[in-house]
Amino acid sequence: MQNMEEQFTKLKSQVEALAKKAPENKLSMIVFSGDLDKILAAFVIATGAVAMGMDVVMFFTFWGTPVLRDKAKSVGGKDMMGKMFGAMLPKGTCEVKLSKMNMGGMGTAMMKSLMKKKNVASLEQMLELAEELGVRIYVCEMSMDLMGFKREEMIHYPDLTYCGVAKFLEEAQNSKIQLFI
Amino acid sequence: MQNMEEQFTKLKSQVEALAKKAPENKLSMIVFSGDLDKILAAFVIATGAVAMGMDVVMFFTFWGTPVLRDKAKSVGGKDMMGKMFGAMLPKGTCEVKLSKMNMGGMGTAMMKSLMKKKNVASLEQMLELAEELGVRIYVCEMSMDLMGFKREEMIHYPDLTYCGVAKFLEEAQNSKIQLFI
Amino acid sequence: MQNMEEQFTKLKSQVEALAKKAPENKLSMIVFSGDLDKILAAFVIATGAVAMGMDVVMFFTFWGTPVLRDKAKSVGGKDMMGKMFGAMLPKGTCEVKLSKMNMGGMGTAMMKSLMKKKNVASLEQMLELAEELGVRIYVCEMSMDLMGFKREEMIHYPDLTYCGVAKFLEEAQNSKIQLFI
Repeated sequence: MQNMEEQFTKLKSQVEALAKKAPENKLSMIVFSGDLDKILAAFVIATGAVAMGMDVVMFFTFWGTPVLRDKAKSVGGKDMMGKMFGAMLPKGTCEVKLSKMNMGGMGTAMMKSLMKKKNVASLEQMLELAEELGVRIYVCEMSMDLMGFKREEMIHYPDLTYCGVAKFLEEAQNSKIQLFI
Repeated sequence: MQNMEEQFTKLKSQVEALAKKAPENKLSMIVFSGDLDKILAAFVIATGAVAMGMDVVMFFTFWGTPVLRDKAKSVGGKDMMGKMFGAMLPKGTCEVKLSKMNMGGMGTAMMKSLMKKKNVASLEQMLELAEELGVRIYVCEMSMDLMGFKREEMIHYPDLTYCGVAKFLEEAQNSKIQLFI
Repeated sequence: MQNMEEQFTKLKSQVEALAKKAPENKLSMIVFSGDLDKILAAFVIATGAVAMGMDVVMFFTFWGTPVLRDKAKSVGGKDMMGKMFGAMLPKGTCEVKLSKMNMGGMGTAMMKSLMKKKNVASLEQMLELAEELGVRIYVCEMSMDLMGFKREEMIHYPDLTYCGVAKFLEEAQNSKIQLFI
């Protein structure tokens, strides 16, 4: 009997350890791309997952970072490189382009009008929906620094965190789904 | 003793809950790209995984969708946008191009002849192999609608399902591996 | 009592089976891309994950393969195709270019000087760090064969294995995180 109890206690702690290691019902996504089509896919997946009851974190890095700038905001005090990046990269969701068939902007305009006609939400609407549904957004500090972006020029989003890759990996580590887009 | 039995029953249900949450031996893949190189990688991974005993689902979306059209089929009754997309996007696996070094088609032709010489299966052969091995294919309904594709122009594939992102996420949620290609 | 013991033994083996199926604290990454920005992201994630105590495997395939060539090594005895691929693809980490805004090399040069200024490690330094931290590197044999690369022209890296996709999938299968970059 004694032995049985001991074994039981051991099994119990094994089960607890397993339960701790089990991933949460969460989706962690790296948004590396800054293309209209890929950002759209990222938001369709993110909002779809939240609608299914999942917790969702999007980590915006590299070309994904400028997409979260606010078109209406501009900041001074940048060095030459920062100014160049600022001018060359899309400023906010409305300036992103298709990765293919952009054709000097015509393809992107066609796709946008098509999305409207087919009742597919625009990136602006997707971002609003994500906010409403509680999608968490992380912004890569290294990318902000590299491209010379300042926090004052980014969009207002309630659940936005500036962080490094380690914080994202912590989320990804205990997520059921991880994607690099 | 009573206490012990109660504890045992509790532990049992904990273990059952954990077992239910454990992912299946499954690989879920989003095929977003329509490039020869990436589609090839997707099929090499998919067929490799099935050969190892895994269940595999490929969700074709955006640029991946036109790749599943049947070259020999054509449908009428499309609007102007549908006709344009239909004409500009690759029609089936034999028309896809390399993402890099395409060089007006020369790079793609070189790669294809190289694949033949090195006994790497062509996309057509990969698709046949996938069918034989039981790879399940999902096609994104939103992409079909956006690009104006009709079901009548898609390839014949026994295990093909038209669905939304939610159905794919359900598969991904309980898969060991998820990839966005 | 007999019954209780039987049930206990059954539960124990269930727990053991679950423990065996639980993924390891590991990140498995397919490095398909050969672009400076994506390779950089891959190494930032890989080294970040090791620093957090994770085991990391990077599987270099397709455009990622030539990045692991050693600039200083050259081999003979290649056929025409092999020579062409050899000449056209970047030879090692120092020749890779940005996927966007390359602008005839100017964008890439700008990014590199910016990385230096902002104390972001270069690809060469990242590779050294990965080696130090014990990141394991797999190189896709099919890609080596397709592109006509020989083992003699690859970099010296202590933990480098030439293998097929199956070996990578075995790692990915019991990893917490999988990414396709």
